[in-house]
Amino acid sequence: MKKKNKKVNAAILIIGNEILSGRTQDKNTAFICNWLNEQCGISVSEVRIIPDKQKIIVKNILELSKNFNYVFTTGGIGPTHDDITAVSISKAFKIKYGFHEEAFKILENYYGKSNFNDGRKKMAKMPIGSKLIYNPSSAAPGFMIRNVISLPGVPSILNSMIENCKPYLVKGLKVFSKTINFFTVESSISKQLAFLQKKYKGKIDIGSYPFFRLGKIGVSVVNRSSSKKKLENVHKDLIQLAKVKKIQILKI
Amino acid sequence: MKKKNKKVNAAILIIGNEILSGRTQDKNTAFICNWLNEQCGISVSEVRIIPDKQKIIVKNILELSKNFNYVFTTGGIGPTHDDITAVSISKAFKIKYGFHEEAFKILENYYGKSNFNDGRKKMAKMPIGSKLIYNPSSAAPGFMIRNVISLPGVPSILNSMIENCKPYLVKGLKVFSKTINFFTVESSISKQLAFLQKKYKGKIDIGSYPFFRLGKIGVSVVNRSSSKKKLENVHKDLIQLAKVKKIQILKI
Repeated sequence: MKKKNKKVNAAILIIGNEILSGRTQDKNTAFICNWLNEQCGISVSEVRIIPDKQKIIVKNILELSKNFNYVFTTGGIGPTHDDITAVSISKAFKIKYGFHEEAFKILENYYGKSNFNDGRKKMAKMPIGSKLIYNPSSAAPGFMIRNVISLPGVPSILNSMIENCKPYLVKGLKVFSKTINFFTVESSISKQLAFLQKKYKGKIDIGSYPFFRLGKIGVSVVNRSSSKKKLENVHKDLIQLAKVKKIQILKI
Repeated sequence: MKKKNKKVNAAILIIGNEILSGRTQDKNTAFICNWLNEQCGISVSEVRIIPDKQKIIVKNILELSKNFNYVFTTGGIGPTHDDITAVSISKAFKIKYGFHEEAFKILENYYGKSNFNDGRKKMAKMPIGSKLIYNPSSAAPGFMIRNVISLPGVPSILNSMIENCKPYLVKGLKVFSKTINFFTVESSISKQLAFLQKKYKGKIDIGSYPFFRLGKIGVSVVNRSSSKKKLENVHKDLIQLAKVKKIQILKI
């Protein structure tokens, strides 16, 4: 994995009617966002969930691949008629769609020649020139073409494959986060947080999230930055704020 | 709630760095998708998750409000500096941002005059001319301006408010769904499903999703349509398919 001393970003494109109908709760977004951030120093800047429709997939692939360093797609690379991610990405980039020789061999070997039916063969088809993302749990590989990486939608399979994306990614500046939990309400510290956000503008992102714990109301103040030193500074400011305002801090 | 005998669609715009960082698992998408579908006959056609940045919120509000019948936003309507949804929507539509008289009274009444600080007052500010979405659990209302409805990000609060959106929505054709669970693998029925999808093109959406149950591999075939009769027809076709291919059906 190469390293770049600047910010690297990504978008996620979740492809699947089952998420939009509300039938299935998407779990891939949180997993990929965490993994990219922790392991690769890559921040996810946008997520889109769209239906299994070729025209819509094509439009979104073109938009996102232009605007972000990487695009991760999930879903739509299985054996059935509603699995149209690979052919749609080919259309988007005007690249021929066809069998990937190594993927074909992997699948033929996994299923055995006599069980290697047309549905299964379809999983070896992708944009010509794709690099494979190996799949240790169910063989059918994902693929990378240009700056787009396509992974399956089933979370357990996706999770097993994610490490195999690493060699293809350029590592960015890691974003660290430091959280402080106050037993207070948001509005009692909103002015001070706004002041701190101005003070550290462009250096630290300060987020404020209410919580309920031990029967009491609280606020998690989450600070995110690529500078550990700046995080220490804002942390000291927040401890000072708690002291002045006599706010109890929840120790975890 | 008025009724329209045609399809009505919506987009969801999830606003919040905490979802993109992977810190928080979004639960609002599945809830809103289900509710709109079941209660209002409205299909969610796209979801986007974006950061708390005004320029990005403005751009997405303009795009989504133009392309879909309704846009639901979640998050960013609290009392702190990172709550910028209302001001961003005002900017997007070039509508003045200011106090909503009734919202101001509701909040003043809820907190009491002496505790009604600037952070809390901010929650009464929105695009001028907005209609309120009442909040039975924590007072601070959501709002609707043009075809955009803004709700808070905390799932329990959002859930308590959703019924109050109904009077502002035009009801569309309800989409029904019928699922049949086969104990087989996707690739063994992929050809037949593709045939059925062609047969019912434009009338029924057929989705195929692998599952593991009782130690066996299976496929859930989910059919969605606004015609109950067509759903019965495809269901009969699928039972016939199971018979011919000697596939066991999982009865739930």
